[in-house]
Amino acid sequence: MAIVVQKFGGSSMANAEKIRRAARRVMERTKAGYQIVVVASARGQQTEELIRDARDLHPNPPTREMDQLLSTGEQQAASLFAMALDAMGCQAISFTGGQVRLRTDNVYMNAQVKSVDAGFIRRELDHGRVVIVAGFQGVDLQGNVTTLGPGGSDTSAVALAAALKAEECEIFTDAGGVYTADPIMFQNGVLVDEISYDEMLEMAGLGAGVLPLRSVAVGKRYNVKIRVRNSDDDNPGTVITHEVPQMEGVTVSSATIQKDMAKISLIGLPNVPGTAAKVFARLAEAKVVIDDIIQTEISPEKANIAFLVGTSDLPKAKQVAEEIKKELRCDGLFVRDDIALVSVIGVGMRSQYGVAEKMFGSLAKAKVNIDSITTSEIRISCAVGRDEIERALEAVCLAFELDKPARQRKPV
Amino acid sequence: MAIVVQKFGGSSMANAEKIRRAARRVMERTKAGYQIVVVASARGQQTEELIRDARDLHPNPPTREMDQLLSTGEQQAASLFAMALDAMGCQAISFTGGQVRLRTDNVYMNAQVKSVDAGFIRRELDHGRVVIVAGFQGVDLQGNVTTLGPGGSDTSAVALAAALKAEECEIFTDAGGVYTADPIMFQNGVLVDEISYDEMLEMAGLGAGVLPLRSVAVGKRYNVKIRVRNSDDDNPGTVITHEVPQMEGVTVSSATIQKDMAKISLIGLPNVPGTAAKVFARLAEAKVVIDDIIQTEISPEKANIAFLVGTSDLPKAKQVAEEIKKELRCDGLFVRDDIALVSVIGVGMRSQYGVAEKMFGSLAKAKVNIDSITTSEIRISCAVGRDEIERALEAVCLAFELDKPARQRKPV
Repeated sequence: MAIVVQKFGGSSMANAEKIRRAARRVMERTKAGYQIVVVASARGQQTEELIRDARDLHPNPPTREMDQLLSTGEQQAASLFAMALDAMGCQAISFTGGQVRLRTDNVYMNAQVKSVDAGFIRRELDHGRVVIVAGFQGVDLQGNVTTLGPGGSDTSAVALAAALKAEECEIFTDAGGVYTADPIMFQNGVLVDEISYDEMLEMAGLGAGVLPLRSVAVGKRYNVKIRVRNSDDDNPGTVITHEVPQMEGVTVSSATIQKDMAKISLIGLPNVPGTAAKVFARLAEAKVVIDDIIQTEISPEKANIAFLVGTSDLPKAKQVAEEIKKELRCDGLFVRDDIALVSVIGVGMRSQYGVAEKMFGSLAKAKVNIDSITTSEIRISCAVGRDEIERALEAVCLAFELDKPARQRKPV
Repeated sequence: MAIVVQKFGGSSMANAEKIRRAARRVMERTKAGYQIVVVASARGQQTEELIRDARDLHPNPPTREMDQLLSTGEQQAASLFAMALDAMGCQAISFTGGQVRLRTDNVYMNAQVKSVDAGFIRRELDHGRVVIVAGFQGVDLQGNVTTLGPGGSDTSAVALAAALKAEECEIFTDAGGVYTADPIMFQNGVLVDEISYDEMLEMAGLGAGVLPLRSVAVGKRYNVKIRVRNSDDDNPGTVITHEVPQMEGVTVSSATIQKDMAKISLIGLPNVPGTAAKVFARLAEAKVVIDDIIQTEISPEKANIAFLVGTSDLPKAKQVAEEIKKELRCDGLFVRDDIALVSVIGVGMRSQYGVAEKMFGSLAKAKVNIDSITTSEIRISCAVGRDEIERALEAVCLAFELDKPARQRKPV
């Protein structure tokens, strides 16, 4: 029998009625002949409440104890889910991460999944039960509870789907799928039917967080078909997969923005090997997360290095940059803290010309000045002024027809 | 180094300030050179809240899932306790029942402890850590979470003290110890300094629930010195132990009452072997908890059987009694639903005369009519009318000088 993994987020489990609704989703699938593994998230705001309880006792709680604490939210949700199914006449059994031997490394609060006892789960499924696994958690080799970091239940779900060779991993969220652009920022954004892992990875990296990066990375590695959909309706949502055959003609699948960015430019650094390495080693030491890097040679002796950071990391980044400026005797240090980033993403752009031109052209027509440009194989990003970002997003979305389903768009 | 187990109840852990206060108790002991194992109960009313959540989803939740659910309360409390200690500069580590391999049978919601991995806990203690164990829970051989029934955290604490050969098992409760009589019912009741396991077992059986019966039984079996005390003051509380040397002169250590009792009398049953067995087998089938049994022969052919039940079990008991009356063709069935029971308990009465006489005499002087009498080796109980129970308790307490500490009492 084919296995489907269904993951329900905290808002899909916020109260008894919502848990029952999610349980009915499971029953639909069992009636259709599937074996179901449910991954349960902590109910509503419970994780946040537990974090508050911990902070009341410790300004910086030990991470091992945080994992012992936070993992209980998902354990509760899993057992309640099993009760809801049982009340509907559907046999169900709940397990913690440890009980299904979901092994991780021992990096508390951000552990990586190593293995899952798929045989154990399969035996329970073969007894005719729905298996409910508490998301977000595992155990290390010593049996300590670990948690998988932000969005960890999504990672649990995809890892379980991989281990069980599930036909599909359904992720139920309020978002209901992946949009061509955030519907709050661009009202005419439409749902994407299919998208590739690589595009999702770029989107996650750009903060368009329908799914956390790690869950997509696991899905890509083990070829798990992931479907993101809404728990309140029957829309098929968005499928994330390796193969997106109809996409060959479609160049850009989505556009994203990151609003709170800053740019730091070091002007006139010594143009010798090792300069960039030194700069970014120092920033890494200070735990600054770097978004994009732009390096340009201005003379045989001198180069400029600019990089983008989130505004929350700006104070740390600025301090490090000032130290570097002194040490390496730069000519100047410029900080721009009113930057936003608009990006277009599409596997198709690998083999198509004209994407960059169309993007820059649309911004020019909308009178948006481009501060800097960075690209990857499947992405083009432009830094613009923060007060122009809505206009920039709209211009780009309309240029690439992201207000229409993929099949209705003209080729670039 | 000597080990002390300290168990804190839910009300001693209801909020951050109370958890900190309990943590300071632990620090006092570690500074005095002890290795400490803490047993944590679920915070405040959390268990009741989880039970409500479960009932919202299932009228009669599966017991395995209840144990998965309820055990999280103690797990949360244990990790928060560890954080509180860490914040005070005291190394601490929390574990679930399963993590310290507290093995039980597989009777969910009422499991019996089989074994504990004392070596594992000792290694943690020897690393200089306070070990905090989530109370109330264990795992069966298959790794399913089990819980130990009402008062289960006390049982956890005593079982851990037994396995670790602890010098003492301190149970912190609001009650602060064992009283000669419930201070709410008899205002002049005094704290008992020392009491024997057997007396505590009788008291627990009579519903005078300072400690659950099972925790005392484990304590007796493994000779664990149990101290019941208040978490808010420094009173030494009550020690429960095998050896109560100063007690030889003291006959009665305490008096208890059970208010909501009923008596069912089957009159003129056939006086043949197997009649009583039949009656109580049928009552057991109906899950009626029988408190006391009085059987009397009224002729060579006929006997009466009377028994006491809690009023909550009365409807079930009455129905069974009516069926039995028909089947066995009794002469009559009487039900008295306004009974209460007053009991005196004391190891001393084994070897002393005059206790019964003094009890009956005190009730007679107070003009309390005795409906029926039952006794064990260390207990005498009298059933009286419920509206006379306060008067009965006072009369008995004064007769046995239970308003004075044991050393000030005259011998019977």
